Amino acid sequence: MAGRILVVDDVATNRIVMKVKLTAACYTVEQAENGTDALRLARETKPDLILLDLMMPDMSGLEVCRALKAEPETADIPIVLITALCDRAAKMEGLEAGADDFLCKPVEEVTLLARVRSLLRASDSVRELRGRDEGVSAYGFAEAALGFEPKVQPGRVALVAPGPRGAVLWKAAIEERVGGTVQIMPKELALASAAEAEAPDVFVISVDLGQRNEGLRLLSDLRSRPGTRHSASVMILPEGDTERAAIALDLGASDVLHDPFDAQELAIRISAQLGRKRQSDRMRAGVRAGLEAAITDPLTGLYNRRFALHRMEQMLAPPAADLSVMMIDLDFFKNINDTYGHHAGDAVLREVAFRLRGQLKPSDLLARIGGEEFLVVLSGADREAASACAEQLRGCIGAASFDLGDGSFPIRVTASVGLTLPGGLGDGVPVTAEALIRQADRALYGAKAHGRDQVSYTQGAAA
Amino acid sequence: MAGRILVVDDVATNRIVMKVKLTAACYTVEQAENGTDALRLARETKPDLILLDLMMPDMSGLEVCRALKAEPETADIPIVLITALCDRAAKMEGLEAGADDFLCKPVEEVTLLARVRSLLRASDSVRELRGRDEGVSAYGFAEAALGFEPKVQPGRVALVAPGPRGAVLWKAAIEERVGGTVQIMPKELALASAAEAEAPDVFVISVDLGQRNEGLRLLSDLRSRPGTRHSASVMILPEGDTERAAIALDLGASDVLHDPFDAQELAIRISAQLGRKRQSDRMRAGVRAGLEAAITDPLTGLYNRRFALHRMEQMLAPPAADLSVMMIDLDFFKNINDTYGHHAGDAVLREVAFRLRGQLKPSDLLARIGGEEFLVVLSGADREAASACAEQLRGCIGAASFDLGDGSFPIRVTASVGLTLPGGLGDGVPVTAEALIRQADRALYGAKAHGRDQVSYTQGAAA
Ligand SMILES: [Mg+2]
Ligand SMILES: [Mg+2]
Repeated sequence: MAGRILVVDDVATNRIVMKVKLTAACYTVEQAENGTDALRLARETKPDLILLDLMMPDMSGLEVCRALKAEPETADIPIVLITALCDRAAKMEGLEAGADDFLCKPVEEVTLLARVRSLLRASDSVRELRGRDEGVSAYGFAEAALGFEPKVQPGRVALVAPGPRGAVLWKAAIEERVGGTVQIMPKELALASAAEAEAPDVFVISVDLGQRNEGLRLLSDLRSRPGTRHSASVMILPEGDTERAAIALDLGASDVLHDPFDAQELAIRISAQLGRKRQSDRMRAGVRAGLEAAITDPLTGLYNRRFALHRMEQMLAPPAADLSVMMIDLDFFKNINDTYGHHAGDAVLREVAFRLRGQLKPSDLLARIGGEEFLVVLSGADREAASACAEQLRGCIGAASFDLGDGSFPIRVTASVGLTLPGGLGDGVPVTAEALIRQADRALYGAKAHGRDQVSYTQGAAA
Repeated sequence: MAGRILVVDDVATNRIVMKVKLTAACYTVEQAENGTDALRLARETKPDLILLDLMMPDMSGLEVCRALKAEPETADIPIVLITALCDRAAKMEGLEAGADDFLCKPVEEVTLLARVRSLLRASDSVRELRGRDEGVSAYGFAEAALGFEPKVQPGRVALVAPGPRGAVLWKAAIEERVGGTVQIMPKELALASAAEAEAPDVFVISVDLGQRNEGLRLLSDLRSRPGTRHSASVMILPEGDTERAAIALDLGASDVLHDPFDAQELAIRISAQLGRKRQSDRMRAGVRAGLEAAITDPLTGLYNRRFALHRMEQMLAPPAADLSVMMIDLDFFKNINDTYGHHAGDAVLREVAFRLRGQLKPSDLLARIGGEEFLVVLSGADREAASACAEQLRGCIGAASFDLGDGSFPIRVTASVGLTLPGGLGDGVPVTAEALIRQADRALYGAKAHGRDQVSYTQGAAA
């Protein structure tokens, strides 16, 4: 179930008014009438969003907000603080306690719903990256696969204002308060930054630049370019312009703020966006590293068995060129582990992987598919080229001994190779990855039986 | 570099006009003056988008479009056909050839740029899921990890029109032409569908519903709800309403169409969106399955070594409860493989995994970290509970023999267990995953040395 909103207010009428508005917009509403119940419900039911009254008899909304943000289980639930008393100090305190927004009663409906949509969209992206099932993903799916922790760099903030004067004022107001670099950019430079390696993390954009609504167009444009589509953005609008604030949020602005604004408030909102950007960058990097791990042999960095088989099936899909398949097995490898230890064995496997890779084209498939077993698949090579390649691969292992670099004597290692020549399955045998590998495996046993350190060909297809 | 657009037109003036517009919007423009050059450049430089003239002397834009869509390497590049001759037949042919849109000269700038943004955004999402690096991802990153092919279901199309009459007409016009179910929905039902297991794949939405712009708000709303945020959407607008068409695209509409429209055109556009939705669903499922594969032992479905170590480090982060760590190794397992074959050995490992899982709480960590080696980590158990659990795990292996279900005699299997008791590292030893496992490993060797099928405790910490 999506769109569950927890409404917390000590006044029943307030809760009911809010519930009517939200239910009409097809959200499911739960209610709490004090801070204690709010904390309990938030922990138990994990709502998608919390609308939280600031002033309550048992504990203040601020306390509830701080408590929820301090617990990993509830820290990601977006919170909007709502109060009748809209003073500056309370607002700053609320935002610094981790609230995502601060609205004053009576809450204007268009603004409220646009903000709700924006927060739900953002937190759902996070949840999708994390994985939503219980179990595995309870630990954090993406971060899990790895131990991945990218280098944290200072944040980059870009200010895009109508004229240089406004931007200079903004910059002066926030520079000291925001951790990171703050740069003033005309619209063109902001767009061009999308093509650079390090695009800004947060754009602060005035809704009207040279022309009316030009900031909105810039926002859409930044969100359509790969370099900036994950950047956060804070849209600055004239006081009272709630309609365009709603549009900005729907266009993907991460936050909106009305001018004249409080410099501290802008700085807090920018810092919050920097933090969120960093979190989502880390999760995306985690997903990426996780996927890479899924298809890679961790010891050698080559593809693993799972990927190799899948890739062979792809290569066999029409229009398929004839494939040559080699199974390469290191001779007497167990001796190396037994004599020199696992560390030496691992070093040999890494060096073998490196040597094999050096003999092959980028388009050739190379994988480690067992302890000391490597698979090579060539596409479109003729019999002569495939045989030559197999000899080369055998040679690159046996020709030079392996120096483990630890001061011990270099080790001599040889490899046996079984080769299924292109078209080497014989008539009537369906060409599958499995059949090709089985043939190469048989040839490999032939090479082993005939004394090792040699290439054997598939029976009946031997040239 | 992002935002490279290939402009294809046989008239130099047309290319220049287009280049000026696109360069002003910070895109990089390449040019081709005929179909042959267009094909070559598209293959070589893989532009992010192609603006393709329909009428050219050497080959028509249609032919170029079909050729590019037929090649896997170029099939995903979005193509907008542009022509002076805006007849219906040409338009249908163009869309059916796989073009993403069809614009008439003179091309209106706001529409063009909004469409460019929308197409670039969509294709960049696809590219991000695929992975953008060369090498691995050249094969299709996400699809790679797996062999994953989810069940293809007929598409679900939802029509949201101002009144029942309009929707019934739309439905009648397209139902036969679209593969899938077509359902008329009032706005409220469309929103409610986001909470259902099977939300529509494509929403066709009129820009004005009960109120002006209500369709735009619905679009934003659907995109903020988890169930529908990946659904495609086609926005229907009054003739000539290019401004709101641009807004709709920037709000995330997948396509726009002006009323009165051609039923066949709507059907083609819906079908195209159904196809794209299916592709991105498959890729997302692939990413998910890939991540799951990265942390799972394929034979038993338990966590793998990589995940187990990472998870242990997480468990050791403050505030950490005391951990109990067990290393469980099957006794004489090599004999099973040698006597009964690998198939039998694998069946035993699966059954062992099943039995161990049955003895543990969901919050206990269980992983297969080597051939016949399993790791168990309990958090917050006292010494007594940890010892009892270790005995239970040993017992659940040795107590009942393993029936492989192939008619052969049941096999008896026993396990030795090394246990690091909570707090069992001794003073001064830093508590790391590695240290805990090393201790459990030593205890395991003790259990093996003392005759197997028993639990040994960490030296000095034995109760
Ligand atoms: Mg109150
Ligand atoms: Mg022409």
